[in-house]
Amino acid sequence: MRKLKLGMIGGGTGAFIGDAHRRASRICNDFELVGGVFAVDYEKSKQFALNEGLSLSRCYESIDALITGELVLPVENRIEIVSIVTPNAFHYPFAKSLLSAGFHVVCEKPMTITVEQAEELEELVASNKLTFALTHTYTGYPMIRQMKGLIEQGALGTIQRVDAKYYQGWINSIIHETESQITGVWRLDPKYTGVSSCMADIGVHAFNLIEYTTGLKVKEVLSDLSPVKEGIRLDLDGTVLIRLGENLKGVIRASQVCAGEENNLTIAVYGSKASLKWSQENPNYLYLLSDTEPTKIYKPAHSYNNPSAEDSHSLPAGHPEGLYEALANIYKGVAKSVRGETFRYGEFPTVHDGVRGMRFIYAVVESNEKGNSWVQI
Amino acid sequence: MRKLKLGMIGGGTGAFIGDAHRRASRICNDFELVGGVFAVDYEKSKQFALNEGLSLSRCYESIDALITGELVLPVENRIEIVSIVTPNAFHYPFAKSLLSAGFHVVCEKPMTITVEQAEELEELVASNKLTFALTHTYTGYPMIRQMKGLIEQGALGTIQRVDAKYYQGWINSIIHETESQITGVWRLDPKYTGVSSCMADIGVHAFNLIEYTTGLKVKEVLSDLSPVKEGIRLDLDGTVLIRLGENLKGVIRASQVCAGEENNLTIAVYGSKASLKWSQENPNYLYLLSDTEPTKIYKPAHSYNNPSAEDSHSLPAGHPEGLYEALANIYKGVAKSVRGETFRYGEFPTVHDGVRGMRFIYAVVESNEKGNSWVQI
Amino acid sequence: MRKLKLGMIGGGTGAFIGDAHRRASRICNDFELVGGVFAVDYEKSKQFALNEGLSLSRCYESIDALITGELVLPVENRIEIVSIVTPNAFHYPFAKSLLSAGFHVVCEKPMTITVEQAEELEELVASNKLTFALTHTYTGYPMIRQMKGLIEQGALGTIQRVDAKYYQGWINSIIHETESQITGVWRLDPKYTGVSSCMADIGVHAFNLIEYTTGLKVKEVLSDLSPVKEGIRLDLDGTVLIRLGENLKGVIRASQVCAGEENNLTIAVYGSKASLKWSQENPNYLYLLSDTEPTKIYKPAHSYNNPSAEDSHSLPAGHPEGLYEALANIYKGVAKSVRGETFRYGEFPTVHDGVRGMRFIYAVVESNEKGNSWVQI
Amino acid sequence: MRKLKLGMIGGGTGAFIGDAHRRASRICNDFELVGGVFAVDYEKSKQFALNEGLSLSRCYESIDALITGELVLPVENRIEIVSIVTPNAFHYPFAKSLLSAGFHVVCEKPMTITVEQAEELEELVASNKLTFALTHTYTGYPMIRQMKGLIEQGALGTIQRVDAKYYQGWINSIIHETESQITGVWRLDPKYTGVSSCMADIGVHAFNLIEYTTGLKVKEVLSDLSPVKEGIRLDLDGTVLIRLGENLKGVIRASQVCAGEENNLTIAVYGSKASLKWSQENPNYLYLLSDTEPTKIYKPAHSYNNPSAEDSHSLPAGHPEGLYEALANIYKGVAKSVRGETFRYGEFPTVHDGVRGMRFIYAVVESNEKGNSWVQI
Repeated sequence: MRKLKLGMIGGGTGAFIGDAHRRASRICNDFELVGGVFAVDYEKSKQFALNEGLSLSRCYESIDALITGELVLPVENRIEIVSIVTPNAFHYPFAKSLLSAGFHVVCEKPMTITVEQAEELEELVASNKLTFALTHTYTGYPMIRQMKGLIEQGALGTIQRVDAKYYQGWINSIIHETESQITGVWRLDPKYTGVSSCMADIGVHAFNLIEYTTGLKVKEVLSDLSPVKEGIRLDLDGTVLIRLGENLKGVIRASQVCAGEENNLTIAVYGSKASLKWSQENPNYLYLLSDTEPTKIYKPAHSYNNPSAEDSHSLPAGHPEGLYEALANIYKGVAKSVRGETFRYGEFPTVHDGVRGMRFIYAVVESNEKGNSWVQI
Repeated sequence: MRKLKLGMIGGGTGAFIGDAHRRASRICNDFELVGGVFAVDYEKSKQFALNEGLSLSRCYESIDALITGELVLPVENRIEIVSIVTPNAFHYPFAKSLLSAGFHVVCEKPMTITVEQAEELEELVASNKLTFALTHTYTGYPMIRQMKGLIEQGALGTIQRVDAKYYQGWINSIIHETESQITGVWRLDPKYTGVSSCMADIGVHAFNLIEYTTGLKVKEVLSDLSPVKEGIRLDLDGTVLIRLGENLKGVIRASQVCAGEENNLTIAVYGSKASLKWSQENPNYLYLLSDTEPTKIYKPAHSYNNPSAEDSHSLPAGHPEGLYEALANIYKGVAKSVRGETFRYGEFPTVHDGVRGMRFIYAVVESNEKGNSWVQI
Repeated sequence: MRKLKLGMIGGGTGAFIGDAHRRASRICNDFELVGGVFAVDYEKSKQFALNEGLSLSRCYESIDALITGELVLPVENRIEIVSIVTPNAFHYPFAKSLLSAGFHVVCEKPMTITVEQAEELEELVASNKLTFALTHTYTGYPMIRQMKGLIEQGALGTIQRVDAKYYQGWINSIIHETESQITGVWRLDPKYTGVSSCMADIGVHAFNLIEYTTGLKVKEVLSDLSPVKEGIRLDLDGTVLIRLGENLKGVIRASQVCAGEENNLTIAVYGSKASLKWSQENPNYLYLLSDTEPTKIYKPAHSYNNPSAEDSHSLPAGHPEGLYEALANIYKGVAKSVRGETFRYGEFPTVHDGVRGMRFIYAVVESNEKGNSWVQI
Repeated sequence: MRKLKLGMIGGGTGAFIGDAHRRASRICNDFELVGGVFAVDYEKSKQFALNEGLSLSRCYESIDALITGELVLPVENRIEIVSIVTPNAFHYPFAKSLLSAGFHVVCEKPMTITVEQAEELEELVASNKLTFALTHTYTGYPMIRQMKGLIEQGALGTIQRVDAKYYQGWINSIIHETESQITGVWRLDPKYTGVSSCMADIGVHAFNLIEYTTGLKVKEVLSDLSPVKEGIRLDLDGTVLIRLGENLKGVIRASQVCAGEENNLTIAVYGSKASLKWSQENPNYLYLLSDTEPTKIYKPAHSYNNPSAEDSHSLPAGHPEGLYEALANIYKGVAKSVRGETFRYGEFPTVHDGVRGMRFIYAVVESNEKGNSWVQI
């Protein structure tokens, strides 16, 4: 099958997330990286392109140069899709330029800095009929897809409670340094990071998994956020009460100051008949609990799974796949979309998920500022 | 060593919790059950006493009869301590009568129905210089005591977040029956159960573990409770935002409608240097996480533990003890107190824990009724 | 119900196993300890009896004195059953004396020092129609009984492999001391310990679980034992190939030198349709694996279990019970037997299990001495 | 960095293992697949090449054609290294041809069918000074490398016992079909599979992990193998006693008939001071046990690990990597070797590991045939 020509903005030498996107695109094998703007410093960008074995003629000095340069190429040689893996503030302008010029886009999270920007991209994707994927990577895990499938099939009965969390501890090593050191961290500066640290970076993943697996919408939130330490101007920790229906409540917890926690993202959905629990750090195990039967453990590569789960794992049962493969599953869905193949909803997070995420982040921040009151999403 | 003469109110044939108290008292071997009022129906009470091999002369028709009957006996034969394992509403009047008459008391949870009753018992215990133990049984687990000890020693640095939960699912089998069936369940009737179901029955255990292990006080709460189903008049599910200090927040989750959850009580305390996590269903494992070192698993029966943990487990390492032994540890602490032996704070939950618990329950209910606003404890 | 009058030989102050037997007898509540010979030193024995609140008249100087003293008492006051918790070498002579005098017996493991002694006790039990229980305590765990039940019901199809192990590490702290220190350890002296250390102490438990859960007999063994260190005269480590049928093989592993292992006893039985796995250190989880369905986790206190499993756990689901309760289940079965109640096979290990165990130990040692050749059991 | 030009023999459409090799080579990004012989049927091979986007001129009809065709190309365009992912019997002749013609080789396991063939390849690699990697993929897991490193550093003290196993259940679905169906399975036919099924396919992985992590050599083996069912002519199950030194014994277990087991490969190495345990199905957790300290869990992406472990994981801590990444680590080591970069021993399994493996398999089969007697490796 013909490989899609992929461009990349950002992600040069030393960038973890750009590397992850490239690996994922290579794992799924539907893409060929042909060019991009890999660094702000053009010389560094070119050095990176050389290391990757790319043609320097496709290593551009700016996004505008990339758009201009590619559009003059014959359609069959042209970059069709661009992955944006820059710092957050650039997601919106770059995505806007690329979509306007007719390129499909894969965009890192958070999609934008404001809700309005997100909505603007949403319209642009719709009007230009383009593929836009937001890398809520965790939705690429096979057992998350199995969870979504089981819920769709009604395995849980009436959903009665949802509970998701994302705990990390890495920011401890920064905030417990001297004040002058903290000042220098862009992560802790609203100017660069936006209105939220913890909720925008990780809380939104928990939110996304809830909406992805249950198919429900979070209607309103009440949050209590904490800077944890005097002098910090952003939330590093928080809890969000959520409501999804008349009698359906839940909670999202997120923190960057839980010492020793790595990427402890979990989701539990509790129903009247049964419940499902999943944890990112052991992603190949999905637990179904019921009051009347033994707990069941679903694992990938078994015919008892849904097709969406089975398509998302290629190794024989008992050989673990991990995060790179989850991201590759997202890329695989994107390729199908770009090629116009039929695909089931849920194969990659879309611009609509991005809009939902931005609304969640703003609602959470607003609730906290308003003295922990309820805010509609 | 002389065994303490134990009486019991409630706990006759078929009562799970009374049986648990008797087993615990036999495991620790510091008590001898000699009499009591085991059932409302005197004939049933006597039948139970016979089955237990007790003298019928010590099987009383009422608590007043017990008090009168025992006080005329020589001091060395007299019941010294009474376990109250009746339905909730009777805890307060029976405890009051017994304390007033000079008996030590072990009381099931919740201690009372109102905060005022709890405070009255607190005064009575203080003025009469008696031992009063509330069976927050989970504080009897060795690894909970190890957790408390490690926190006291400063192993976590500054505490930055606390997170406790108690999830069950058993009430599902009741609430999803017909409406007429629900009406008949005393558990769901505020007249018999009080102001709260879920928070009073299990949420308060999570609250108690937080205060027990950290030594801190929860200062205010904001709750969102749910009856889960139309027609239910009490909370069966809820989340409580909590604040313990300027920058120290946390959350308590509790639910009785999480299908398949059994007694999933967990606590995590996150500090600037390290964190501790524990789960009741695997009580012999305590996890210490840090950002810089391998996760450590503490287990009972090792010289690396605190004395309070080591005194709470008698089998060689690797032979599990469970809930009965945890309750026996509470009873062991009570025996030391009654005998006037020196003992460390924390060997059994006291009347003060009962007062704290009642204040927590009322604050949580008030917060929910006031539209999810903050309420001081 | 009338409590059975219990005597005890050994188990005085400081003895872990005697304490465990007394706790177990109190937990099941079918016994009343009334006397015994608690220590070789009569003064110490009496001091122990006083501490336990026993009548000094029932604290005897020797087993002969106990037999004589009890037989003159009225039948309704007399000790009916005696627990032998002495060092190994005394099990046989004491059991023989007690059985010959008409007492029921609970005996610690290993039952005897030689196979002949074991067979002699077997005949004595049969001819005198007495109850004799050997405390292979692990058969008292509810999930082991569930395992036995599931296998009986054919849940596994044809059994194709059995695999059991018992790993400990505690002897490391002894054998890596100076040579003179090793010399002084009776555990390492064949004169006191018999022909085997590791296999007789723990390997035999793995053997017993295999025969208990599968209902099959191990027909022959081939062993490779190791003293681990020069100068040690007994096996501290070993592996035993076993055969249970034409095409049914398996393996038993045991070691006392696995640093950090505590009481890591596990059993796995693999069938053509499904398999079962259990681990002593997390005894309330039983895993059923199959090639075509999600793994199932059985836990106690659920109606999906067999009656024998359900009768062996008294707490609500999710409240763990442990080793003391397993031993109490053995004692409960013994009480039913002594009282002549009907009971299912398997409620306590019998003298026949003791004979099997001794044959296993001798066959394993013989195989090793014969250069690792097959030996019939 | 310049990518190495990779060829492949076998691994066409539908071949799981060829796909895995290609993914791994793409993940590590040091290779570019440029040609090969992908199927016996040349048309199918060409179709596969087209699908992969390869030039048809590099899609050869046979291995001889490949060698001839590539050797006439300029050195800088020429295939430098060839991955052999054919059925087992072809590994030896193809590897011999390729090595003789000066190509580096990556070869699937088992390396050959006989020990003599393995030794011949060993000489060929040495005399031609080429890189030869055998894909014992599990040695590419970061925590296996951490295990090797910790043992090298002496963390365990004197090694006292080794215990490895590999349990699967997939062959159950074949052997319990009708006899005629079994006859048709090449896996069960010695003509195609060689002298062993279970030990050659998976037991040898357990053997390899023991020698890799401990740095020790297994000196002799005593095995008991089972065909499990009448009419099967190969081992599907077995246990192997092993000896690595005077007082250092251990055991290897392997089975293909353990219903429900997937790829349950585990290794435990027990020392006088501490022990290490690892399981392939949860490869990112390494447990260090000791008698005196809490159990420690090592995980990837922490500075406390050895460089060889840290180089083998690229995601931040808590984001799992899996088998594809382990295989990519092997390929990464191969690339370093081909490029002449310095690298530590252990970055990929070599031809020597292949020779060891073949000797192990033959010794195990010989021991079984000789009535379970000891055979030197």
